[in-house]
Amino acid sequence: MVPRWKGKDVKAKKDAEAEALREPMSKIISQLQSSLVQSEACGFLSDNSVHLAVGAEQIELLDKACFGQPVRTVEKDLVWFQLSLEESFYLCYSLNCLKIKVGDSGIQSDKELWTSMKSKKKTFPYFYKAYSHLRMKNWVVRSGALYGVDFVVYRHHPARVHSEYGALVLSHEDDEDLNGRLQVWSDVHCTTRLLGGVAKILLVMYINKNGNKDESPLCMENYTVQERTITRFVPEQSRENC
Amino acid sequence: MVPRWKGKDVKAKKDAEAEALREPMSKIISQLQSSLVQSEACGFLSDNSVHLAVGAEQIELLDKACFGQPVRTVEKDLVWFQLSLEESFYLCYSLNCLKIKVGDSGIQSDKELWTSMKSKKKTFPYFYKAYSHLRMKNWVVRSGALYGVDFVVYRHHPARVHSEYGALVLSHEDDEDLNGRLQVWSDVHCTTRLLGGVAKILLVMYINKNGNKDESPLCMENYTVQERTITRFVPEQSRENC
Repeated sequence: MVPRWKGKDVKAKKDAEAEALREPMSKIISQLQSSLVQSEACGFLSDNSVHLAVGAEQIELLDKACFGQPVRTVEKDLVWFQLSLEESFYLCYSLNCLKIKVGDSGIQSDKELWTSMKSKKKTFPYFYKAYSHLRMKNWVVRSGALYGVDFVVYRHHPARVHSEYGALVLSHEDDEDLNGRLQVWSDVHCTTRLLGGVAKILLVMYINKNGNKDESPLCMENYTVQERTITRFVPEQSRENC
Repeated sequence: MVPRWKGKDVKAKKDAEAEALREPMSKIISQLQSSLVQSEACGFLSDNSVHLAVGAEQIELLDKACFGQPVRTVEKDLVWFQLSLEESFYLCYSLNCLKIKVGDSGIQSDKELWTSMKSKKKTFPYFYKAYSHLRMKNWVVRSGALYGVDFVVYRHHPARVHSEYGALVLSHEDDEDLNGRLQVWSDVHCTTRLLGGVAKILLVMYINKNGNKDESPLCMENYTVQERTITRFVPEQSRENC
């Protein structure tokens, strides 16, 4: 399947592709990283997300890099951004450009934050490994709730291109908090049919901990990621015109 | 949601509805029942289906009543029909108009057939209860594989009306062969989004055995069926124009 660039006609689609090539995601993320480091950005973890107050420049950079979403304007040019657990931990731990506080305590160490996030979401280690694995390869990763998957995966900004994959995070290991999906054929049919209908491919990411006890985020280096794509087989389509 | 009758324009849709009213499903099924009894119909169970050789009149009645599908023409006016386990057991046990043989042995008693079908498909008791529960209320029930559900449910023949429900068979009881669906939110999102996109409602049928050991089909009388429909909540749609 080829990337589906957005635009009202062929020329506009080509322009979207050219713009994306001129401004690769890796470059945008570097800009965001520098800006957050320079401003000593600090977010607050509460419930299942991190809130971060940002000014005009960072609002634009967070939007271009597809991290979080604006939730409330505090005053002119100052907005609270809401980041998911995976997004904020990626900025904090993998890009080292965000500090995070929990409640009244001070800035959390990577290990403390890791423990806080695991306590908020049991499957966090699996989900974070999948999220960071894709982000490090410069894919844009957003929530897949709308399509009944864990993440949707874009080649570039969603304003420029349609997402190509719907990803489910599973494990070959016996973890009762994970693996609620694709246990029966009807679920496989449902997922591939829905994603096929919106021109996406099902990407199944099996995250295996290989016996790690998850005491610090360093453990994730020993996790393995196995990727599989699953598509429907349509006999008529697959015969002569493929 | 109102039934969506089929037809290229409003008049054709109204005609489809009028025809369905003139010829209710209960009447068609009575005709099929009489015809099968009169011809002493006998099918053969193999793999996961029952094959039945039928002539022109019964081909039409099976099609009108939506049981099985033709698989092979043996000679002029004689066709092998393939019936699912649920369909054939319904004709045999609930309508008492079909006999079934297994391999070289003779015609099976209800209890023998029940045991044979359970050995072919562990979840047969649950699925049969759901299937027969809907059929007895004169709904047309077909496989839901295309939509990632167990059954699709029609008000009348699929040529006349679109299916209104996609049904999943589950149980509140702890049966490891069942209950592979709707364990996590992403699956609920996936299923309701897919069905919503094709104008169907998710019907969840919880079948509870209430301690029965399933030694004969009579046990099913003590099963209970709880039905729930699940639809997506779309805030904008649900506010003013509902």
